[in-house]
Amino acid sequence: MSTLNQSHGSAPESISINGGPPQPLHQTSNERGGTKARSSKKYKHTFAIHAEAKTSCLSHDAEATPSFLGFRNLMGLVLVVSNLRLMIENLKKYGILITLSGSSISSNDWRWGVFLYFLTPCHLFGAYVIELLAAKAANDVRGKEKKNADAIDHIITEQDKKNLFSTWKPIAIIHAINATTMLVFATWVVYYEIHNPGIGVLTQLHSVVVWLKVCSYALTNRDLRHAMLSNDPSGADLPALYKTCPYPSNITVGNLSYFWWAPTLVYQPVYPMNKTRRWDFILKRTAEFFLLSALIWITSAQYAVPLLRNSLTDISSLNFVNILERVLKLSTISLVCWLAGFFALFQSFMNGLAEIMCFADREFYGDWWNSSTVRSYWTSWNKPVTHFMKRHIYAPMIGRGVPPIVAQILTFLFSGILHELLIGVPTHNILGFAFFGMVGQLPLIFLTDVFKDAKGHNAKLVGNLIFWLSFCVFGQPIAAIAYFFAWHAKYGTETRPAWPTAKAIM
Amino acid sequence: MSTLNQSHGSAPESISINGGPPQPLHQTSNERGGTKARSSKKYKHTFAIHAEAKTSCLSHDAEATPSFLGFRNLMGLVLVVSNLRLMIENLKKYGILITLSGSSISSNDWRWGVFLYFLTPCHLFGAYVIELLAAKAANDVRGKEKKNADAIDHIITEQDKKNLFSTWKPIAIIHAINATTMLVFATWVVYYEIHNPGIGVLTQLHSVVVWLKVCSYALTNRDLRHAMLSNDPSGADLPALYKTCPYPSNITVGNLSYFWWAPTLVYQPVYPMNKTRRWDFILKRTAEFFLLSALIWITSAQYAVPLLRNSLTDISSLNFVNILERVLKLSTISLVCWLAGFFALFQSFMNGLAEIMCFADREFYGDWWNSSTVRSYWTSWNKPVTHFMKRHIYAPMIGRGVPPIVAQILTFLFSGILHELLIGVPTHNILGFAFFGMVGQLPLIFLTDVFKDAKGHNAKLVGNLIFWLSFCVFGQPIAAIAYFFAWHAKYGTETRPAWPTAKAIM
Repeated sequence: MSTLNQSHGSAPESISINGGPPQPLHQTSNERGGTKARSSKKYKHTFAIHAEAKTSCLSHDAEATPSFLGFRNLMGLVLVVSNLRLMIENLKKYGILITLSGSSISSNDWRWGVFLYFLTPCHLFGAYVIELLAAKAANDVRGKEKKNADAIDHIITEQDKKNLFSTWKPIAIIHAINATTMLVFATWVVYYEIHNPGIGVLTQLHSVVVWLKVCSYALTNRDLRHAMLSNDPSGADLPALYKTCPYPSNITVGNLSYFWWAPTLVYQPVYPMNKTRRWDFILKRTAEFFLLSALIWITSAQYAVPLLRNSLTDISSLNFVNILERVLKLSTISLVCWLAGFFALFQSFMNGLAEIMCFADREFYGDWWNSSTVRSYWTSWNKPVTHFMKRHIYAPMIGRGVPPIVAQILTFLFSGILHELLIGVPTHNILGFAFFGMVGQLPLIFLTDVFKDAKGHNAKLVGNLIFWLSFCVFGQPIAAIAYFFAWHAKYGTETRPAWPTAKAIM
Repeated sequence: MSTLNQSHGSAPESISINGGPPQPLHQTSNERGGTKARSSKKYKHTFAIHAEAKTSCLSHDAEATPSFLGFRNLMGLVLVVSNLRLMIENLKKYGILITLSGSSISSNDWRWGVFLYFLTPCHLFGAYVIELLAAKAANDVRGKEKKNADAIDHIITEQDKKNLFSTWKPIAIIHAINATTMLVFATWVVYYEIHNPGIGVLTQLHSVVVWLKVCSYALTNRDLRHAMLSNDPSGADLPALYKTCPYPSNITVGNLSYFWWAPTLVYQPVYPMNKTRRWDFILKRTAEFFLLSALIWITSAQYAVPLLRNSLTDISSLNFVNILERVLKLSTISLVCWLAGFFALFQSFMNGLAEIMCFADREFYGDWWNSSTVRSYWTSWNKPVTHFMKRHIYAPMIGRGVPPIVAQILTFLFSGILHELLIGVPTHNILGFAFFGMVGQLPLIFLTDVFKDAKGHNAKLVGNLIFWLSFCVFGQPIAAIAYFFAWHAKYGTETRPAWPTAKAIM
């Protein structure tokens, strides 16, 4: 009864018609309960339900816009329901496609994968040896300087500078050889020897990560060495954080090993640290990581693979309506994989690893999903890479007087090469889709920059929709279809059980 | 460049590691521009990117929960994209199914439809004649009273009361005969003579609306008559709004005609009125109404009908997985029709009609989409019917001492009968689905009432999801499939061009 009475209870106690003075609504109290005298109870049917002018809450002239939270809930529900339906449809059509056998991966792939897993980090220790020698040379120069200038506040002479540069050049060359040999060798192995793209991507990713770490280690230590040789006693040119471990005392195996496992690509002699490890936190992140990985695997095997196979004929016959239909269907699947993958890697894995390493700076990503510009997406979704790019590529170029726009283009070119290495090489088709996908972000960035300073809610919405559309709805599915098609054009179905559709186009 | 520098700019100027005192970050200013001395610019690579402990924004230990507006946008986008895909799939499978020919409606249906369209309101004027006679009788009684008691403040005697009741009984019987004859005749015609369910629903809806208006007119005037006869000179028992038109001066053809066309089922001698009509407003509402009607028609013909036809075999073979799949697919389509239909009828049509009639109380619905209880949905989605039920059925019962729970059950039983009349009769299958669909709301109401007083955001969310699931995702599609199946079991495909699937099960 309460709700039926609610609107009586909330009915205004006074009414105003056509601007006249408010008048009491005598009937209101009659409706509330059954305690009044019988004479007034009789006239229920005369109650003035329409007692005052009111607007419909969806009209433009309504006083306040109503909440639309219920429609947000409905959207989520319809998404779940319609994808549940597609899952039933898929099950009816294909049955269960997921198998636990890993037999399709050749023993050659496994051997190379394991070999490179152990070989790759060795180059990090190669970099350590180089830095150890460089530190020794720098110490020698410094020792000589100290002898010459003794207790006087020292200023670098021309001869010192020459010494300094004479040690820097060979060090740079040896570092470049060490790091790049590793990357080139790993790339060669993945492209020519590892057939399975899964093992290929993991191996290539490992080598790229280690290569970036070696670069950061070398570049940072070079600047630390310069800072030591410039011999500013206040150390004001260096972050205060580093004072606890001044150069060259950071050149140790322990310090490097920490950097090797720390969830960052940027070398610092000292990082902000936690004092304790929360083991339940580590356990939860590990569980999340494995559950999400299973989700991605099931989604790929059960939903993405049949869809990609079905699209092969449409691509070879260039049936654009069908290709569009396939891209749109794939977009939901790739979105699930992308979001699950993002969470698994950047939230679960990195937080878990950071907890193990007592690494306190957990800002591995920003709220990129709210990005209203493509630029803010690229600077916030992957902070470890953004930090590397900013510190070792973009900022040094700006410091050397390169115009920002040129520096941005060069940064994205570099990033494009890394992306092509990570996708093109393991799939044995250097198509340039990944590369141009990255470089193609530049026009999008300049296009969506107009939404950055827009104040209106709608401009931000449009920017956010452009980001999602370009990146997740079209970008990723089109790239996935392209690499899948190229793979099948090159290898056919040799590594998989025969599949009617795929066979038909051979 | 601005964004790449942004996080430098926004980097804290001081850091605190492991609870130590904040220390200045000397590097920050170096990174901003190229104006500093060369010596400090050199050490770009040593910049402390990881300068303080930070949390990931999705972690539970984050200081603030980030905004998830971007994900709401993504949900909307995925909904649009995945339904766009289904539209392409539908077009590839069926081509364009929409035709403008209305030839499948027999001339007999048209004739009866038009005849009832003009006949139905006549009974409203029948009610007017009855009230005119009743008012005359009441005036006679009052005149006699006045003669007897003259200028003294009058109190009703036993004889007066007898007179009063002696007029009331025959009036009630004649009203009941007048109103119910019309409803029974219209129902008989729709069930036996009008084959087309579209014309059937419109005719039946018209007769139900007029029947409710006649009931409200009769009941309200009875109470107004009682109030006049009780002769309270202050008129305190009646709403102040009615003072401008005291009984029996409201019993005119003009007053009744206004009620006939006013967007309400509840009779009042006087309504809150607007002084002017906004013709652009009327034009916009009319355009909305026709566009939304076209949307519903296209959605039904192109998407719902093939789906319903495809489900016929699954229903006759009781394949529950397939039926579930059909129900889930139909739910999106029926939701579009439902939301468009709601907006077309309650926002566009009723606001347009109200503007024409200068009817000022436009509260035809509340924000039912946010309902966290099924009760609040039923009291807010259709205010005209809720007002009728509250004023003429529920409140009088409560006033007569009926327990609220019994009054609620009786109200829903009455509503169930009306729903079955509106759906079962035009589809020529009085299955009881509509009736029990309404009565089945009662347990749902008592179930979801637990969420009404729940303070938490999650309880409201659960309540809202239960409402959407029960009503829109399962309730409506299941009812639609049931009536469609019953229709085809009874009539086969006689009124439509032959259809392979439908033919197969005959």
